[in-house]
Amino acid sequence: MNTHGIEMTNAGLDAAVAVSALDEYGEPRAGHIASERPLTVYVDKREIVTLMTLGTRPELLVLGWLRNQRLVRRPEQIRAVQVDWDTASAVVVTRDGIDNLGTRLSRKTVTTGCGQGTVFGSLMDDLEQIRLPPGTLRQSQLYALLANLNDYNAIYRRAGAVHGCALCRGTDVLHFVEDVGRHNAVDTLAGLMWLEDMPGDDLCFYTTGRLTSEMVIKVAQMGIPRLLSRSGLTHMGLDLARRLGVTLVARAKGQHFLVYHGAELVDFDAPPRRLSRRA
Amino acid sequence: MNTHGIEMTNAGLDAAVAVSALDEYGEPRAGHIASERPLTVYVDKREIVTLMTLGTRPELLVLGWLRNQRLVRRPEQIRAVQVDWDTASAVVVTRDGIDNLGTRLSRKTVTTGCGQGTVFGSLMDDLEQIRLPPGTLRQSQLYALLANLNDYNAIYRRAGAVHGCALCRGTDVLHFVEDVGRHNAVDTLAGLMWLEDMPGDDLCFYTTGRLTSEMVIKVAQMGIPRLLSRSGLTHMGLDLARRLGVTLVARAKGQHFLVYHGAELVDFDAPPRRLSRRA
Repeated sequence: MNTHGIEMTNAGLDAAVAVSALDEYGEPRAGHIASERPLTVYVDKREIVTLMTLGTRPELLVLGWLRNQRLVRRPEQIRAVQVDWDTASAVVVTRDGIDNLGTRLSRKTVTTGCGQGTVFGSLMDDLEQIRLPPGTLRQSQLYALLANLNDYNAIYRRAGAVHGCALCRGTDVLHFVEDVGRHNAVDTLAGLMWLEDMPGDDLCFYTTGRLTSEMVIKVAQMGIPRLLSRSGLTHMGLDLARRLGVTLVARAKGQHFLVYHGAELVDFDAPPRRLSRRA
Repeated sequence: MNTHGIEMTNAGLDAAVAVSALDEYGEPRAGHIASERPLTVYVDKREIVTLMTLGTRPELLVLGWLRNQRLVRRPEQIRAVQVDWDTASAVVVTRDGIDNLGTRLSRKTVTTGCGQGTVFGSLMDDLEQIRLPPGTLRQSQLYALLANLNDYNAIYRRAGAVHGCALCRGTDVLHFVEDVGRHNAVDTLAGLMWLEDMPGDDLCFYTTGRLTSEMVIKVAQMGIPRLLSRSGLTHMGLDLARRLGVTLVARAKGQHFLVYHGAELVDFDAPPRRLSRRA
């Protein structure tokens, strides 16, 4: 991975913790649950935010968070990202500081999504500048991709209570990230795309979580024109997808899916055999 | 409902929007999706936060948000909560102002949970002062409660993409609230408990969402010693439940559940008949 000259630690932690619980027979059952750790981000010695995270890819999470909050525009602006779990801190050093950091952090905080997401000011600012290519999709490829995605969700299957997100190309899963918050998983992938200089044009973004406004905005800002979810969507998520030109497919699981926007870009080349009741 | 002399609008909106999507046969399917609206909260003319919400109980959401953020300590401090969807605003007027509001809002923002939750400074401050009574539970009552809860989740069944939370007593569901964010649903119930002067001692809090740190803290601060979830939990959620003395039951669905903390307070009086393979 090209690190753009950024000095980074590699402080990823194990994601699941072994615990015991009593089941409905009053008997002990051993199992795993997801860890959740606070990570306080300092930028040029200024405390910015504390993220609650699974902790598997903390450096990429911090990078992607700074990108998706529009606080840093290019990875080259960053000199170092040093994560230390003993102090639960991520120390970010920039090369030339961040213009008006104080002012930008003091702007209104928008809270969204499943929890209440923090957005410092400018997330919505540049929407008009987003230009996405057509998000074409082929049904047969979509089915192959969904089958491939089934092999992931490792932490979810072991410990539950996490969301998974993936960068996909065609039928391939390029990167799959899980975190206690689906926004953390998105941010981590944004950090990864930055480091790998990966454009979003030919990618499809998959999430196990819901397609809310913040989810659609982040994916569009990452330059990705296809958004695929196992779950549902909100009306504001749909509205933004229409405005930004994101092909939106929800409830995608097995052979089922619903195309909420961009249906004219979907090639329905593999309709399932109809059940007799529908014939 | 006793409004504590608070002047309140009643601006609840319809929660679902009718839309059409194309299914896997390329054929249109009519359905509903959850709405999601921004609501900007102003306290004494100062802009505080924008919440993304379903919008069904906006006044209670704002009240409970102020309570759970520890910005307001008693409902009597508030003179009015006026929600106007034309301007997407909730105007809160206090009787005597909020001490050090500026300082408290400038304290670090903690983001947690499924999205990235906003917590202005003091959410974690008063944990040592929380004293909860023993969160006793009886298995037979738990089963009856879970059966009663099945009748709710109206918006979820119609539109998906929401989380439900409920205040329960014994086998009864007292209040059930759905929102696009589970933290909004918790906050709305916190507002409702305030207005109804409802203590938490004999209540059980139910959520369809996951038990993360922020969820456990909020429920404990609402004085409720029992927390029940259809989903899983994180290790930090469990850790806080142990520290605060919250009986924690996760994966509760049908006849199944797992007691992660407080098992000695659970009366296993109705173990299900064992399947032959377990006999």
